[in-house]
Amino acid sequence: MKPLAYIGIDLGGTSIKMGLVDQLGNILYTLGSPTPVKAGYQHVLALFSQMAEQLLRKSDNEWENIIGVGVGVPAFLDLQKGIVVEAVNLGWYHVPLKEDLERLWTVPVIVENDANAAALGEMWNGAGKGASHLICLTLGTGIGGGVIINGDIYHGANGSAGEVGHIKVKHHGGRSCNCGRKGCLEAEASATAIVLDALEQAKGMSTGLLKEEYERSGTITAKSVVQLARQGDLVCKQIIINVGSVLGNALAQMCYLLNPEIILIGGGLSQAGKILFDPLIQAFNNEVLPRVAENTSIVPAKLGNQAGLTGAAWLIHRKYTLHLL
Amino acid sequence: MKPLAYIGIDLGGTSIKMGLVDQLGNILYTLGSPTPVKAGYQHVLALFSQMAEQLLRKSDNEWENIIGVGVGVPAFLDLQKGIVVEAVNLGWYHVPLKEDLERLWTVPVIVENDANAAALGEMWNGAGKGASHLICLTLGTGIGGGVIINGDIYHGANGSAGEVGHIKVKHHGGRSCNCGRKGCLEAEASATAIVLDALEQAKGMSTGLLKEEYERSGTITAKSVVQLARQGDLVCKQIIINVGSVLGNALAQMCYLLNPEIILIGGGLSQAGKILFDPLIQAFNNEVLPRVAENTSIVPAKLGNQAGLTGAAWLIHRKYTLHLL
Repeated sequence: MKPLAYIGIDLGGTSIKMGLVDQLGNILYTLGSPTPVKAGYQHVLALFSQMAEQLLRKSDNEWENIIGVGVGVPAFLDLQKGIVVEAVNLGWYHVPLKEDLERLWTVPVIVENDANAAALGEMWNGAGKGASHLICLTLGTGIGGGVIINGDIYHGANGSAGEVGHIKVKHHGGRSCNCGRKGCLEAEASATAIVLDALEQAKGMSTGLLKEEYERSGTITAKSVVQLARQGDLVCKQIIINVGSVLGNALAQMCYLLNPEIILIGGGLSQAGKILFDPLIQAFNNEVLPRVAENTSIVPAKLGNQAGLTGAAWLIHRKYTLHLL
Repeated sequence: MKPLAYIGIDLGGTSIKMGLVDQLGNILYTLGSPTPVKAGYQHVLALFSQMAEQLLRKSDNEWENIIGVGVGVPAFLDLQKGIVVEAVNLGWYHVPLKEDLERLWTVPVIVENDANAAALGEMWNGAGKGASHLICLTLGTGIGGGVIINGDIYHGANGSAGEVGHIKVKHHGGRSCNCGRKGCLEAEASATAIVLDALEQAKGMSTGLLKEEYERSGTITAKSVVQLARQGDLVCKQIIINVGSVLGNALAQMCYLLNPEIILIGGGLSQAGKILFDPLIQAFNNEVLPRVAENTSIVPAKLGNQAGLTGAAWLIHRKYTLHLL
């Protein structure tokens, strides 16, 4: 008989990733599919079912080998009941996801917010391995966060813990944020902020690499700003340095409150690497008292887009190993 | 036979408070004494011993009725071993407090940082009763903090969690802080900050209540600023409003990360009451997204200088009820 394993699902607004995960957090097989958002909830359930069967066939497994299924969802959740309260990107409101999937598969199902699942994945088998207290930042269009305390995700009073994108980092003249405020971390230091910074700069320029890129492609992406910075363009370099400094400063403030062992930086923008991490770590070290940060390291996330399904599987793993299933 | 109880000790740089605490967190008897700091460690141990005997006599108890002793110490601690690593105000460095007291009393002893003990006391039987996730702020000469998560104190990677006094709240032109930086929360919003604000104001004034107070007494205290503000002095009112706003803003940022159920405000300055809490709560509500704070309340601490010994007793209570002693 095959060793027992978990299924982890990372349900995004764009794609679904499903994987078979062993008891050490290694992914044995994965499957992917675009998310049929428009087709609706029942259709997604049917697709989950097909994908799971395919995953089992592909890996030569049966449902008897599966201890349970974890699902990361971009949503506010009722964690106790496993209900998706609001998933704007999926158009789901008050759907009993856990109950429906347990009826379908007759194994235990646990649902969790997708950013939290990604943080747990990194803790289990990624850049946070071995740590118990972590802050995880996801730098993308916005800035998401997850707080892990004593080896488990911390939800707070109503599930809003780790909403670090809206920490105010600029008190005067800050950029407008989606939340209706100004100067929020994600308005000042996300990939979106980099694009807006670059557009402002490009418009005021008569020559230069950034200007050329803008005129050639008609737009600017965070990726292209990072690339130009790497090629030595000073304007783009400065934009990335500014963003890194803002992030480093903000992380220092978080460190006073939470004194984490590891701060993980993931998401698309973290791919910028050294050019972003150097000013970020410099600003962090300038801002934080040495004693408070002496046991804290800042590291890039490692699992990329497999963090979510790994962490979703961990949810089952945890309960299984604690005999709570 | 009497019901079993705990002894809680709050060891400060100025005074020692010792109390007999029942299993509901109520204080049955207390004793106090000045701390004989200059006489040294062994002398304090001897005094502890005398006080404990007196407490038992007074309450008609024997050591058999005592489940254990908790001690709050103003120090960095090695919690595992119960060693006081550094207690500047006591002049203690690397003393095995837990071991020495257990040899003395032959009951289990637990030591904890004093600010954390106070936070736990408020959670057990004060303004935080019933909550599991709390941030506790102590407003005094400096600003201390304690973070309670899942009903227990959270220490972080090296015991620095909750060092919120050094969160930066003023990025330009901030006042110098004891830590060597500028614009820290405790440099801008402690009782000390109020005194410095008031002194600056008084020096520039030709008349007014504040000026009169300064000339009459030769100094200004935070208490007198609060009193004058209550009497309607606009300058003093504005000083308190500013400090309240800074605190409210800072708490909003903490709320994004920790989403606590309750934020407790204690320490001498919290006695200012409404005149401080009104602008504090207003600034908090202006700064925080409603969803993030909808389950968070900001309340004054309730136990005053009995919080510490109550929380110290709770440390024993917790282990006893979990059968961990």
